[in-house]
Amino acid sequence: MSEVYVARRSRLRDRWTAEGGEAALVSRSVNVRYLTGWSVPGAVLLLGADGRDTLLSPAAPTTDGRTEPPRTTGDLRCTVLPGDVPDPAVAAAGLAAAAAGPGTAVLAVEEHDLTVARHRALAAAAPRLRLTDLGRAVEQQRLVKDEEELAALRVAAEITDHALGELLESILVGRTERHLALELERRLMDHGADGPAFPTCVGTGRNSGLPGHRPGDRRVEEGDFLSVRLGARYRGYRCQIGRTFVIGPAPADWQIELYELVFAAQRAGREALLPGTEYREVDRAARHPLEAAGYGDLLEPGTGHGVGLEIGEDPRLSPAAMGKLDACVPVTVEPGVHLPGRGGVRIDDTLVVRPQADGGPELLTITTKELLAL
Amino acid sequence: MSEVYVARRSRLRDRWTAEGGEAALVSRSVNVRYLTGWSVPGAVLLLGADGRDTLLSPAAPTTDGRTEPPRTTGDLRCTVLPGDVPDPAVAAAGLAAAAAGPGTAVLAVEEHDLTVARHRALAAAAPRLRLTDLGRAVEQQRLVKDEEELAALRVAAEITDHALGELLESILVGRTERHLALELERRLMDHGADGPAFPTCVGTGRNSGLPGHRPGDRRVEEGDFLSVRLGARYRGYRCQIGRTFVIGPAPADWQIELYELVFAAQRAGREALLPGTEYREVDRAARHPLEAAGYGDLLEPGTGHGVGLEIGEDPRLSPAAMGKLDACVPVTVEPGVHLPGRGGVRIDDTLVVRPQADGGPELLTITTKELLAL
Repeated sequence: MSEVYVARRSRLRDRWTAEGGEAALVSRSVNVRYLTGWSVPGAVLLLGADGRDTLLSPAAPTTDGRTEPPRTTGDLRCTVLPGDVPDPAVAAAGLAAAAAGPGTAVLAVEEHDLTVARHRALAAAAPRLRLTDLGRAVEQQRLVKDEEELAALRVAAEITDHALGELLESILVGRTERHLALELERRLMDHGADGPAFPTCVGTGRNSGLPGHRPGDRRVEEGDFLSVRLGARYRGYRCQIGRTFVIGPAPADWQIELYELVFAAQRAGREALLPGTEYREVDRAARHPLEAAGYGDLLEPGTGHGVGLEIGEDPRLSPAAMGKLDACVPVTVEPGVHLPGRGGVRIDDTLVVRPQADGGPELLTITTKELLAL
Repeated sequence: MSEVYVARRSRLRDRWTAEGGEAALVSRSVNVRYLTGWSVPGAVLLLGADGRDTLLSPAAPTTDGRTEPPRTTGDLRCTVLPGDVPDPAVAAAGLAAAAAGPGTAVLAVEEHDLTVARHRALAAAAPRLRLTDLGRAVEQQRLVKDEEELAALRVAAEITDHALGELLESILVGRTERHLALELERRLMDHGADGPAFPTCVGTGRNSGLPGHRPGDRRVEEGDFLSVRLGARYRGYRCQIGRTFVIGPAPADWQIELYELVFAAQRAGREALLPGTEYREVDRAARHPLEAAGYGDLLEPGTGHGVGLEIGEDPRLSPAAMGKLDACVPVTVEPGVHLPGRGGVRIDDTLVVRPQADGGPELLTITTKELLAL
């Protein structure tokens, strides 16, 4: 398994050395995890100019559910710092300076992660280092997923479909949004999730279709739209599903119309997921039907986003997004319309971009998108 | 309620104007919440040189369980930015520059929160602004809690005691650490918590007494030490309790001895909590008995920490910590000893520092600290 991380680090090293970099300091936790497999809060990764990699981890903190301190594995040196070392990044800068010997050396840092205060501390600790910007090199590498990552995402999606499926078999009328959300999260854990990928969202009645609605004490009633959005986190990888149901024997006409509209928009977005398609083209495909129906003012800034170690990572599927899809990029397609005071519909799927020759986009979240009357 | 926030903002303004500051930008979410009552991810607070305060909130993000977009309340202007504004902090800098008119003006920013990249974007967006460091002015103000804050912490502690008390009445043998942790978190929610204050820690047998142990699949067995650490989050305020129990009719001698030792150390720490006492004196009081018993090498860097909107906030109770306790500062006292391979004992309480004249430290987490055999 550690070969995966060795390969990721050398891929990063190759690209940024080609860009003239020397030593690099990765401080953003999620990037450290991607490159080492370790998720130790506060740990940083030094990619040495000498080709040796060092993970510097802080002294054991409390009440954070961290993993055990790392042990040196393969070609990754691991150092757990004593309690009196305030910042592993500063220690890493010292290490880089020492390795460079006399004269100045370059250390590329993640300026989008390091605070101004930490950056200053690094510069003070290693005055002979010239600090440059590694930029979002690791995030860019994380865009296209390798097989290990896709495998973890598939398991996360499977767990999520199971948890949602079980909920649909239970009695819903009379239960509160909050309790349904708690039950969904418990079921995610029961099926092997590390935890929820994001706070589970359950909205019923007038709360349905609201993105990021905080589940409250409203109870499910006959005739409600019920929208749920959840996802499992498995080995750090996060997927997302969103579905909207109708409670009671028969949906109202406005509910059927709104659902069919959002469903058509979401399908159009899914069908646009092909390598080479511009991000904003996918957004437009999902957005246009909703705008054409007069709901343009009710739409969110984006209609989808990348998923992986983060639930809202690149790419963004929005009108202003620049860039084109690659194969093996997992994204959500999640258009929705919320009618203030009445409720609304959201349909979210997680898919992996695949070329047409391979059958087109791979749908990970397979729970039905028919309008179910529960 | 909004008067509370007005008062906090004017207290901050008074102090930092006294230090020669002008406009200030608060970007750290927890500080924005403290000063406005709003917890909107990405929102920033501009304290204008003109004495007017503006909360700038990003366009509705997705899947983050955010609260509804803020509305202008009292003297706080609230602005929800359009989707194409990438960073509210940059918008705030523009606002500050505009308010300052021609000539240069000063904007104090939280350099311990702003990344190098964001700081550069601010400078580029408002070249006539001279960016200075607000430092940890808000964190310093947050050290001493006001009555609203202490009231929220008391409720959080009450919820936590309830959840723990119910668990103790249930059958524990044969259940896994993971399920006990899940049940504790569910009970926290049932009793009205917003959520857990931190990942609930349950360790049994050889895992007992490990700080931040991730609950796993080990089942509770007769003769085990069982240590739990949990806390409720209520209105954003987080408390912490830790207890260790013995499973079965009678503890072993080594268990009784270790428990009595940690109990004595924890009591010594609690009794040291008086206004004017140095942080490291409190740490020493709790640490000395454990060192004297020969466990010095097994101890963590700290024996307690502040609680509030964050679970691990200032002050730190550790050998190197500088500063003295004030009244109305809530802290944990949480010494523990883990014997590798055998297990251990942790006892954590959350208390509020009070002068002797007012009866000394106020214990918030009142669950018994007798060694219970369950």
